[in-house]
Amino acid sequence: MPHSARETGKILARVNRLKGQLDAFAKAVEADEDCYQVMLLLASCRGALNGLMGEVVEDHIREHIVEAENKKLATAAGEDLIEIMKSFWK
Amino acid sequence: MPHSARETGKILARVNRLKGQLDAFAKAVEADEDCYQVMLLLASCRGALNGLMGEVVEDHIREHIVEAENKKLATAAGEDLIEIMKSFWK
Amino acid sequence: MPHSARETGKILARVNRLKGQLDAFAKAVEADEDCYQVMLLLASCRGALNGLMGEVVEDHIREHIVEAENKKLATAAGEDLIEIMKSFWK
Amino acid sequence: MPHSARETGKILARVNRLKGQLDAFAKAVEADEDCYQVMLLLASCRGALNGLMGEVVEDHIREHIVEAENKKLATAAGEDLIEIMKSFWK
Repeated sequence: MPHSARETGKILARVNRLKGQLDAFAKAVEADEDCYQVMLLLASCRGALNGLMGEVVEDHIREHIVEAENKKLATAAGEDLIEIMKSFWK
Repeated sequence: MPHSARETGKILARVNRLKGQLDAFAKAVEADEDCYQVMLLLASCRGALNGLMGEVVEDHIREHIVEAENKKLATAAGEDLIEIMKSFWK
Repeated sequence: MPHSARETGKILARVNRLKGQLDAFAKAVEADEDCYQVMLLLASCRGALNGLMGEVVEDHIREHIVEAENKKLATAAGEDLIEIMKSFWK
Repeated sequence: MPHSARETGKILARVNRLKGQLDAFAKAVEADEDCYQVMLLLASCRGALNGLMGEVVEDHIREHIVEAENKKLATAAGEDLIEIMKSFWK
C-alpha cells in the first residue's frame, strides 16, 4: 500500500537521527566515558525508537485501518496491528 | 458504544484475577518474604495488566475502528487509540 | 531480609490505591462508558503499577545490593535484580 | 570506570547489528513493502535495543554496584541506575 512521500521522508529522517544517536552511544562506550552518561545516551536512543514506532503505528491506524478502501482491507490491517502490538503487552 | 456481555465478562474476570495477584504480592511484602519472590509476584501482576491492556485495545481496534458504522466514527476511534498509545511510546 | 515498616507501609498504600483504580476501571467497563475514558483509566492503572515496580526495585537496589552486609549477598541480590529486569528487556 | 575489552566488544557488536536492522527497516519503508513486514522489522529493532539496554544495565549492576571498590562508589552507581530506570517506570 503506497505511503505519501512526506510520511516516508519523516520516517527516514527519524531513522537517520536514531543511527546518529547510536553512534554517539558507541563512541561513549569506546571512550569508556562515565557510566551514567553512557546509559543516558542509550535511554535517549530507546526514546527515539519508541517515537519512531509510534509514528509508524499512527500512520498504520490512520492510513490502513481508518482509510481502508473496504471492510476486508480494514479487518486485515486491524489484525496486523493487533499482531504487532502483542509484543508490547508481553 | 455497547460491548458484548461476553467481552465484558472476560475483562472483569481479568481484573479480578489481577486483584488477587496484587493481594498475593501485598501479603508477601507484609510477611517480609524473600525479595526475589516478592519481585517475581509483582512482575506477574505487570504481565497480567499488560495482558488486560492488550485485550482492551484489541477489542477497541476490532469493534470500534474496523467495525465502526461510518468513517467519522472510525476516525474518532482511531484518534482515541493513537492518544492512548502515546503513553507507550514515551 | 527485613524492610523498614515505613517502606512496607508505602508499598501497601500503593497496592491499595492501584486496587481502587482497577475497581474504577471495572465499574466503567460494566457501565459501558465511553471507550476513551475506559482506556484512560486502564492506562492510569498501568502507570500506577509501573510506579510500584519502580519503588520496589529502587528499594532493592538501595537496601539489598548497595547496603548488603557482604559481597556474597550483594552478588546474589544483584543477580536477582538482573533476572527480574529481563522481563522488561524482552 | 574501565570496562573489559570483551564487554565493550560485545556492546559494539550489538550496536552494529541494530544499525543493520534499522537499515533493513528503512529500505523496506522506501520500497513501500507490505506494512506488516515493515512493522515487524521495526519491532525486531525494538527487541534488539531492549536487549542492548539489558546488557548495559546488567554490566552496570555487576561491575559498578556489586563490585564497587567502596560503599560510596556503590551508592553513587546505585543512584545512577535508579535515575536511568525511572524512564522505564513512567
